[in-house]
Parts: sequence; C-alpha cells; structure tokens
Amino acid sequence: MPVLDGIQREVAGHRPLAGHRIAGCIHLTKKTGVLVELLLAAGGEVVWTGGDEVSTQDEIAAALRDQGVRVFGWRGMTTEEVGPTLVLDNGARMIGRIAADRAAFPELVAATEKTTEGSRRVRELAPDFPVLLVNDTVTKLEVDNTLGTGQSTLDGILRATGMLLAGKRFVVFGFGHVGRGVAMRAAGLGARVIVTCRSARTAVRARLSGFEVMSPVRAAARADILCTATGYPDVVTGRELDALPTGAVLCNTGQSVTEINLSDLAKRTSRAVRIRPHVTRHLLHDGRHVDLLSGGGLVNLDAGEGNPSEVMDVTYANQALAALRLGRERLSAGVHELTPEQDEDVARRKLEAMGVHIDREIAACP
Amino acid sequence: MPVLDGIQREVAGHRPLAGHRIAGCIHLTKKTGVLVELLLAAGGEVVWTGGDEVSTQDEIAAALRDQGVRVFGWRGMTTEEVGPTLVLDNGARMIGRIAADRAAFPELVAATEKTTEGSRRVRELAPDFPVLLVNDTVTKLEVDNTLGTGQSTLDGILRATGMLLAGKRFVVFGFGHVGRGVAMRAAGLGARVIVTCRSARTAVRARLSGFEVMSPVRAAARADILCTATGYPDVVTGRELDALPTGAVLCNTGQSVTEINLSDLAKRTSRAVRIRPHVTRHLLHDGRHVDLLSGGGLVNLDAGEGNPSEVMDVTYANQALAALRLGRERLSAGVHELTPEQDEDVARRKLEAMGVHIDREIAACP
Amino acid sequence: MPVLDGIQREVAGHRPLAGHRIAGCIHLTKKTGVLVELLLAAGGEVVWTGGDEVSTQDEIAAALRDQGVRVFGWRGMTTEEVGPTLVLDNGARMIGRIAADRAAFPELVAATEKTTEGSRRVRELAPDFPVLLVNDTVTKLEVDNTLGTGQSTLDGILRATGMLLAGKRFVVFGFGHVGRGVAMRAAGLGARVIVTCRSARTAVRARLSGFEVMSPVRAAARADILCTATGYPDVVTGRELDALPTGAVLCNTGQSVTEINLSDLAKRTSRAVRIRPHVTRHLLHDGRHVDLLSGGGLVNLDAGEGNPSEVMDVTYANQALAALRLGRERLSAGVHELTPEQDEDVARRKLEAMGVHIDREIAACP
Amino acid sequence: MPVLDGIQREVAGHRPLAGHRIAGCIHLTKKTGVLVELLLAAGGEVVWTGGDEVSTQDEIAAALRDQGVRVFGWRGMTTEEVGPTLVLDNGARMIGRIAADRAAFPELVAATEKTTEGSRRVRELAPDFPVLLVNDTVTKLEVDNTLGTGQSTLDGILRATGMLLAGKRFVVFGFGHVGRGVAMRAAGLGARVIVTCRSARTAVRARLSGFEVMSPVRAAARADILCTATGYPDVVTGRELDALPTGAVLCNTGQSVTEINLSDLAKRTSRAVRIRPHVTRHLLHDGRHVDLLSGGGLVNLDAGEGNPSEVMDVTYANQALAALRLGRERLSAGVHELTPEQDEDVARRKLEAMGVHIDREIAACP
Repeated sequence: MPVLDGIQREVAGHRPLAGHRIAGCIHLTKKTGVLVELLLAAGGEVVWTGGDEVSTQDEIAAALRDQGVRVFGWRGMTTEEVGPTLVLDNGARMIGRIAADRAAFPELVAATEKTTEGSRRVRELAPDFPVLLVNDTVTKLEVDNTLGTGQSTLDGILRATGMLLAGKRFVVFGFGHVGRGVAMRAAGLGARVIVTCRSARTAVRARLSGFEVMSPVRAAARADILCTATGYPDVVTGRELDALPTGAVLCNTGQSVTEINLSDLAKRTSRAVRIRPHVTRHLLHDGRHVDLLSGGGLVNLDAGEGNPSEVMDVTYANQALAALRLGRERLSAGVHELTPEQDEDVARRKLEAMGVHIDREIAACP
Repeated sequence: MPVLDGIQREVAGHRPLAGHRIAGCIHLTKKTGVLVELLLAAGGEVVWTGGDEVSTQDEIAAALRDQGVRVFGWRGMTTEEVGPTLVLDNGARMIGRIAADRAAFPELVAATEKTTEGSRRVRELAPDFPVLLVNDTVTKLEVDNTLGTGQSTLDGILRATGMLLAGKRFVVFGFGHVGRGVAMRAAGLGARVIVTCRSARTAVRARLSGFEVMSPVRAAARADILCTATGYPDVVTGRELDALPTGAVLCNTGQSVTEINLSDLAKRTSRAVRIRPHVTRHLLHDGRHVDLLSGGGLVNLDAGEGNPSEVMDVTYANQALAALRLGRERLSAGVHELTPEQDEDVARRKLEAMGVHIDREIAACP
Repeated sequence: MPVLDGIQREVAGHRPLAGHRIAGCIHLTKKTGVLVELLLAAGGEVVWTGGDEVSTQDEIAAALRDQGVRVFGWRGMTTEEVGPTLVLDNGARMIGRIAADRAAFPELVAATEKTTEGSRRVRELAPDFPVLLVNDTVTKLEVDNTLGTGQSTLDGILRATGMLLAGKRFVVFGFGHVGRGVAMRAAGLGARVIVTCRSARTAVRARLSGFEVMSPVRAAARADILCTATGYPDVVTGRELDALPTGAVLCNTGQSVTEINLSDLAKRTSRAVRIRPHVTRHLLHDGRHVDLLSGGGLVNLDAGEGNPSEVMDVTYANQALAALRLGRERLSAGVHELTPEQDEDVARRKLEAMGVHIDREIAACP
Repeated sequence: MPVLDGIQREVAGHRPLAGHRIAGCIHLTKKTGVLVELLLAAGGEVVWTGGDEVSTQDEIAAALRDQGVRVFGWRGMTTEEVGPTLVLDNGARMIGRIAADRAAFPELVAATEKTTEGSRRVRELAPDFPVLLVNDTVTKLEVDNTLGTGQSTLDGILRATGMLLAGKRFVVFGFGHVGRGVAMRAAGLGARVIVTCRSARTAVRARLSGFEVMSPVRAAARADILCTATGYPDVVTGRELDALPTGAVLCNTGQSVTEINLSDLAKRTSRAVRIRPHVTRHLLHDGRHVDLLSGGGLVNLDAGEGNPSEVMDVTYANQALAALRLGRERLSAGVHELTPEQDEDVARRKLEAMGVHIDREIAACP
C-alpha cells in the first residue's frame, strides 16, 4: 500500500496526532491494519472495533494489540469509556451513538464517515459536532465503490459459484457508484445486464449505457443472477422472490445485510441446504429453488477478499489525511466535505505509485 | 423530439412567457428551431442569433422569421436594442456582454447558460443578475456531453476521413464528460485510446478505466488521431505539433476553435491542400504532414450533424423548463444551479419517450 | 494503400501478367482503381465492369480508360467478346456465366472469387476450370468482413439517419463474419444487440458473446434498428415486417439487395416519402411507419463510403497475389483455396504497413 | 450438466457401448465424473487415469470406484494391461504410447483427442488406427477454449492474487482461442492488454481487435501480469524473465507446465517464498522480484476450479457423442474430424438447456 506508506513516512517524525485518542469502527482486515499503524506512527492512541465479530480477522487484531491498540468486538466496546477525541466511522454507527448522547463524549473533537449510506445517515442526524465525510471524491467513489467493489463483487460470485457468466442474465438492483461498477464488470465477463433503479435520472443513464432497465419484479423474473447494490433495506422482498426463475443466484454487495429481506425468503423456504461453502440452496414451497450467497451479507467480503489492497490504499489514504487534518484544524460543528485539494493530493500520490506521469507544468486539459 | 413536444403541449394553452422578450444565442439548427417554437408557443417574443455565421442554417432561419422571430448573425445583433427580459446563452457570450454593461439592459430578469465552459466563465464573472446554469445535471452531462458528443465526434471523424478506427492509436486531450464520451466511443470502434489530462484525479480515473495516460507531448508522439476535448484554448501547441507522427489526423470537439493553436500550425506549414471536403492536409517544413479536420473547429458539427435530435431533445427540454421557471419565479442575483427535481422531471419525460418503465411505487434503489 | 503499392513495386519491372487478358467484375471505386493499376503495371490487359451501374464511380472509370482499361456497365459488357484468360469475380456472376457456356471461353485459364456468398455459389457450380477462392483467410474474413464491414455499416447508418445509437435495440440478422462485426460495432456505440440466426452453433456463440438471441419475428418485434447481414435472400419478409414496431429503421449490409423482400414491403406500404437522402419512410396500411435505408441495398456502400481503403488494401492484396499466382502456376480444374502461406504473406505486409513488429526469430506462440 | 444428462437418458436403455473397454485419460474432476457415468450407463467398461496425480480429485475417484471404474494415477496405469477398445485422450499421451507400440493394443478400435495441442501431436504421429479429433468445433473452441478458459484463467488469477485488474498492463502470450479469451476477459475487467504472437495473421487480428502487439521481450518489459496461452514449451525464457519489471505476476494457462521455462527462472532466483497459497515470490539475483502463480502450471485449474461445469457439459457432450459414434461406426485408419452435424447437434442441445429458441422452420440466416 504505497500511498499509505508514503504518508506514514511523512508523519513518522513529528507525530501530529500526539495527544489524540482515536476510536475507529471499520472492518478489521490486514488492509485496515496498515491504516491503524499509520495512526499509531502519527502519535495517536488507537482503539478499534471491526463493527461486528464476523469481519474481524483475529491475527490482525492480535498483531495490533501487540502494538498497543485496544481491539474490541462491536458489543464489547463501550465508546464512552474510550473517551475519543477523533472517531473514524463506517456506516455512522458510532456517530449515531454519539449524536444520541452527546454529553457522554465531552472530549470529542470531530469524526469522519467513509460510506455513501453513512453519509446520508449523518446528514439526517445533523450532528452538533464536526463530521468530515470522506466519501464524495473521485478517489473514493470511482476507485473504491465503482472499480474496487465492481471487481470484488464479481470475484466473490465466481468464487462462491464457479458459474460461467458469459451469456447469463445478470440483474443489478441499484445503479449508483457500486451498482455501475458491478454492471460494468458483469458485462465485461460476457453477461447480459439488466438494471433496476428508482430514480429516472439513473434509469436514463443505465439505459443509454446499453443496459436493459426494468421494474424490480420484471427484472427479477429474468434473473440468472440478481445482485443488490442499493444501500437501502428490503429491495428484494416477497414480490421479487416470487418472480425469480428456479435456479437463480441471489446475492448482495450493498452496504448492509438487509437489502434482501431474509424473513420473506425464510417464509417461502421449505428446506435450506449448504451446497458449497458460500452457497445455500433454498428449496421453496412452490418447487422452485434459489441459491443465496453469503447469507445475504456482503458477497465480496464473505466469498471474496473484499476490495484489493491497491484500492483500500486510496480509500484509507483519504481517511488518514482526513484524520491528520482534524488533528491540526478545528472545523465548525456540522457536516463537512473533503476538499478537492485533498482529493487531488491523494490522486497525485496514487499516480506516482502507479508510475504514471502527466505533465503538470503546462495547461493541457481538465 | 417528443420531450420538447410534450412540454409545448402543456404550455400552449396558457402562454406563461407572455410579456417576455427572449434573446437566444445558440447554434441555429433544425433542432434549435423546435426549442424556439416552444418559446413562441409559450407566449414569448423571440430574438435569436446562432452566435456566428457558420453555424446558422439558412432555411431554419427563414422558417423562424416567418413565425415572427427576429434572426441575426452574431455581428448583426445588438443585444441592447433587443432589450431582453430573458437571455438563453451558450458559452456566456451574451452574459459577458451584459455583465460588462449592466446598465444597458434595464429590463433583464435573468439568463441561462448551457455549457461547461460557459458555466465556468459565468462563475468568474460573478454577475449581479440571476444566471441559471443548465449544465450540471445528469440529463445534460451524461446524455448530451458524454453520449451525444461522444458519438457525434466519432461520426464526424468517420465522415471526414473514412478511415478504419480498429487498431488505431486515438489520443484524447481532456477526460471530462466530453473527453470520456469520445474515449468510450473510440474504444467501442476498436481504437486503442490514450488520454492526456491535467488533473491527477482525472488521470487516475482514465487509467483505471483501462486507457493509457501520458503527458501531452508523449501522447501526441503516438497519435494516429488526436482529438481535443478540454474546453481550454491552446492545448495543442507547437510542442505537440512537433511530436506528431507524419500522417496524424488532428481534430477538435471541445468548446472553441482555439484548442488547437492554428497559428503554431501555420508557422510549421509549407503548403495546405484540401484533400477531402472537411480535411486539409498540412505539409510541414520538416517533411511530415498532418491532416486537420474542419479547420480546427467542432468536427462533430462541421463534418457531422452535431448531436442527434434525441439528445438535443433532452438538452433543450432543460433549457425550456429553465426559461419557464425564470418566467414565473424571481431568482436572487448571482449563479444558480438547476434543481435535482427539474433534472428528474426531464429524465422522467425522456424515459416515457423511450418506453422504459421503472416502478416508482416501491422503494427499489437509488 | 501501402500493401498494394508494395506489391506493385515488386512486379513493376518484370511484368509477370504480360499476355493475360484480365476481366474484373468488382464495384469500381477509387480503391478498386489501385488494384486495376497494379494489374496494368504487372503487364496485364484489363477489362472491367462494376457489376451494375450504381456502384461505378464515373471519374474512376474515366481515369482508368485513360490508362487503356476498357470499362463497361454490367449489361454493356459481353464477357465472351473479351476472351479473358483470367477472371476476378465478386459474387460469382461472371463465373456463373462461364460455367453455363464454357465453350465460349476457350482461352480462360482460371478465375478468382472474393465473397462468402460467391464462394458458396462456386462450390455449387462445381466448375470444370480452376477457381481460386480469395475469401476464407484471416486477412479477408476478419479484416474485411468483420472489422471493415462492421465499421462501414454503422457509419452508413449514422450518415443516413443521424440517430443516437446508445440505448437502442439493434437487431442483426445473421452472425457470420459480417453479422458479428456489425453486432460488435453496434454494441461499441452503446446499442443493445439482439441476434437472430439459423444455425444452433452460431446461436450459442452469439448468446455466449453476451447478445440476446431470438427467432426472427420476436427479434423484429423489438427492433429500433434491424440490419440484415446473412448473404441469403428474403430473410426479412412479411412476417418480420408485420412484427416491426412503428418507427423502426430497416437496412441491409449482406451481399445482395434481396435480403429484405421489397415486394412484401411494397404490398404493406400506402405511401413512401424520402425524408433524408438515404432514408425512405414507408407509411404502412396499418398506421405504422418504417424507415428503409438505401432502398434495401448495401447501406455501407450507398450511405457510407464502403470499407476503408486500409481494409481494401488487404482484400485487394489477396486478389492481386492470387492473380499473380494464376499467371505463373497452372491449377487443376475445380475449386481451390488460398494457401495459408499467402494469407501469412499478406498479413506480414500489413503489419509492416502498420509499423507493428513481432519477433519472428524465436518460437513465441501461435 | 443438462446436455450430458440428456444424452445419458437417451442411451441408458439400449447400452450402445456394451462390450467396449474404454480407457480415458482426462483430469478427473467432478465434471469428468459425469462423463464417466454416462459411459457406464451406455454399457461400457471404464478405466480412467487423470494423467497425473495432481489433477485427480480423490473423492471423485472413490465414488467412481464404487461404480466399478478402475481409476489409476498416471504412472500406475499400464494401458496395455487394460486392453482398451476405445481411448479418450487429452494431450495425445495415450495415443502416443499406442502409436509407439501398436502391436500391444490388438483390440483397439479407435481413439479420440480433445485438445488443440494434442490434435497437432496426433497429426504428426499419423497413426495407423482411427483417431477422431474432438476439438475443431464451434462448441469446443469457442465455448470451452475461448469463453471457458478465458473466464477461469482470470478467476484463477484473482483468487491467487486478489489484485485489482483495472488499469493493469496484462500481457498475453499467444492469441489462439485460449489467448483470445484471456485477452477479452482481462480487458473486460479493465486491464490494458498487450499481445505477443508468432504468426502475422494472428498479430493483425490482435492489433485490429484493439490490443497492442509487441515482440515477446518488449511485451514482457511492460507486464504487470504475464500469462502464457500458446500450447508451446519455453515461450517465457531467460530473455523474457530478464525484461520483466519488478513485481510482475507470471502465470500459465496453456496446455503444459512447460510454457514458462522454470529452469531459467530457478537460475535467476536467489530465494523463493510462498506469500499466498498459490503465489511464490521469486527474489532474483538482480534485486527484482516476480510472483509465479501455481508453480507455472495451469492457473485456472490450480488456483481456480477449472472451467465451469456448464462449459464442460458441452465439451464432454462432444466426447460422449464421439465415443458413441466410434462404438457403432468403423472409421478408416488415420485422423478424422468431428462432423458439422455433431457440432450442430451439441449446440442445439445446449441452446435447449439455456432456454434459447431460434426459429428453424424458416430460412433466416447462417
């Protein structure tokens, strides 16, 4: 992760986060470990939770504990005890808790949030402390959401099922950054993509990109594979389940395990059999069967390895630079966006890591 | 143009622009004629200029004159005389004139601007009258700039040259909405695309989209075809011209004729010969030759037919709805953006025209 | 046309076709003119017909006459009078005439045929004189049929209609080399491609390439554009015409004008109006209308410029090398194929013209 | 595997292979097991070897043994003892042994061979017994080699490395059916593909498909990933290894483990470390490192799961129909090709399994 490494080298000497207690709530993988080490190198005291037991990798947790990081499972961590000055959040779970009981966090300076869904949640909460959204940037939305998740989702589906994608009807629910990446990669593997989405603007975009656009039920009725990527709960409910052809593969790469309504699925299921490590075949009362991947959780994290480290390098560089900024600069209460300057800075570092040279001396083009 | 037609049917009865004098400054093609007729149907008095002689189509001008529209060439029209209440601009040429002599336009209510380059210019001018930018919307940026101009640019190049694109090295200067559309369509015709751009964010995006990214001079040195799409002047200068291989095709689809520095080209030219209707072969002093399309002007308008009417239907629907809004609603002085609601409204109308149905009753996805 | 030029330089000195009377029957365009000049430079006496009046370009005919070539319209040329020793055919029209009256061509040594359809015809005729098929080679099938005709067909459609292809349903009849090229380029311009074909092998290939495959009538019912590319007559008949949605665009890029049954179309037409140079709108008795391009003839030759000269350079190099071989080598009666060695020779010359270097010294790969 | 299942249902009653002793030499996976069961159901006596220890899956072997199949490792099986009447080969290993000692196989009726490399070998051997090549068909070359291996190779690389493919330079050695499939899928995942190949015809095709074409050494020098797919040994030797940039990933999906010269690699290696299950990092004497996947063996079989069962369904259907034909029909000695009728038959069965309907009653197109 050369971008993070470069930032770590820059901060290692002068420890700009000395005196800060940083509470992080992000899946604890090897890649996250590199971010945590940077925060330590910058002088911060760090407490971490992966958010839930499932996504925490034990050996990473152990290695970080050796470096003085307190690592908790989600239920085990009482954020109030930690008394954080900075919070790095994922899905606004910590920020929600703080907003609900602001008085319990007297030392809090600011927080960051890194997901599309979490950013939406933060705006709704309208917090009376500074929250810096580390999401709406080219380097996050394009690199992580579209290209990273696009690839890792298809990778997860291939690992889970081993099926041929060429010629398959691949239905994507949602055509935001993630949905677009999934659609692009499915098409790149030879599938025929059908998109379903709620906004007319998005529908126009999807259709003119050469994808078929349909209502959820009509799309489901044609699905060899159906993948949710919306960031909203309950986008696949009984209506869509009833429309699926027998043998359809069902999976989710959106933000939460709730996109596919599992209770609606359970109601229709007579028997569920694990047929491969990440595949449960649901035999339905009406004689059809559907194959659910990763129990409706994130197929790219569960059946695959999540986003490539080259992608997380960029995403976490944005996090690290945001934390460093919050360490040196007091933001006003409320919601803040990353500056285009930081976005450009991260991109410049990434280009360098890739060995790509653009000529910045002359006025070429935007 | 079913979207414009639908809006015209809605306004025809109650003439919401009655009492307005509308001055437009947009290439006067058959497609623009449909917009003008809508403004007339809405009760407006209309004065129009195509901006310069070249882009005005005489038979359209004549037909509009028959309906009471005053049509001028650029130099012939003195906007002050017209005393417009509403101005529909393209490239901020009228808005620039008004900002320079605000007192001469006492009746002006508001203006609209429809291009990326013009929007940038308007922000610099910081006008003390309301200007509504009709550009930063999905329906404009994706449909018009990316998909419309992407196709029409390649179409223009094929009409001008008749060359095979498969296997050619196609260099695009700029990777904004237009540049991305050009790159996508060139790749779709089998060319190998190289991008040059100024911003690191854009460079990361281009490279991760599978295109080669290089500095302008290195890219030019590999060009079978070089197409500028930046919105900035002088992006191809002597440095790039000196790097081009012999036989390279040179063209522009950005906002102005100035992207290729024609004076730098003239200095290097020993003889220029028109070898096909839109192609001038420049024999250079050093023995190389390059083929300039459309004299460095917009190759999609000059060698092709500009954007398809289905595209302009959407673009002009945004213009028409903006004009109707300015007719009924007083905006504060300064720069305004289109609302997401109008963007969604236009998209909804377009979907209907395409016969695409999404299911808006249920919460499917974004 | 650097490949042809190179061959011409090689033969110019020793006139290997001296003493031969060569009768050609290939569309007489500027590109064909270069082939004819090579045959003249090789010492041959040349007589040419474009096959029919439409495809002969007068100024080319005039220029060739100045060099001693006798140029005829199809009906005006009596091949028997010419007494050819070599025949270069296109669509087996001359070969068919010779096979029907072999005695009238006592001096005939051999013939060549350059199309897929013509090759099929030649095999049926089982001629008792040597015929060399100049079609089943990578350089012909891939470069000319797939890539050349693929591009020129889409180019012709864009010039004829100016329509946006992104998001359109584009139906291709036939998925041989030409059909595949058309499908690939339509998809590259953002269209959603549907294929119809007769063979199951071809259908599997089309479907697994990511295209929808349907029966002709079901495909026609979904067509925004329908393009025939089969090489067979009457593939669009009343059944398909009755299924087309109103506003569909109908065109042909197969070998003959007969793929769309024009008499079936005429029976259904109440009025036909030319709405653009190459577009006739057929208003049908049942209220629908369809737009026929180029009168059902070859849309790439009629509305566009046919295949790019870089493509014809390769195709005609195959023709020229075949003619040179027939001039020096007596083949047995019956059908012969081009040798892989000639195919490789043409490819090697083309690579050189493109400046591509492969390393032939070492055993890399096939 | 619905196609194989269908054939099995057809033959189950009348046991057309009764009396035949069938020796098979094909990787023994779950998918191969389905073929073996079909042969048993057809009444044959079956002896099998996976060819080498590595590719045999123990539980499949055990299950087949329970059904009376004798299963051997490669070295353990003495084909002579078996006394086969029919041989199903993969890579011409058994056929080579038989050709070397024809007298030892007095009961042999015929053999089949299923790979491109093996078919080449068979032609060289010019056997004096019938060999039916089950390779040069659309259903084998397009479905298995191009689409199946194309996907499974990229899948194997993703599983082995977890790297992001978008924006990577991906070098393919070879552009036959497999190489083309690999190139297509790498491009579909956003990589920038460079091809190296030996034949000019293939080079023209690759370049006009939009890929860069270079000599092996120049291509290697640009490789983020280098994948061999040629079917020839020693296509990556010291020359190419010396050119690779540090960090390059090296893998093989051709027919044999010999495409990358491992001895040349060993000579340059100071230390080799397994960094992930299928990845060995070779630290080279000159300070560079390269990551070798699957020890230079077939990355799609070793790191992935080989071709999807839907693909093998088609490939093995060809095998099964070939075996059934050899059981009922005496072929002359020498090399035979599959008939187009069988190819079409397999395709028809596959279409049915996919639920695709083409209209065979009418003459639509080829």
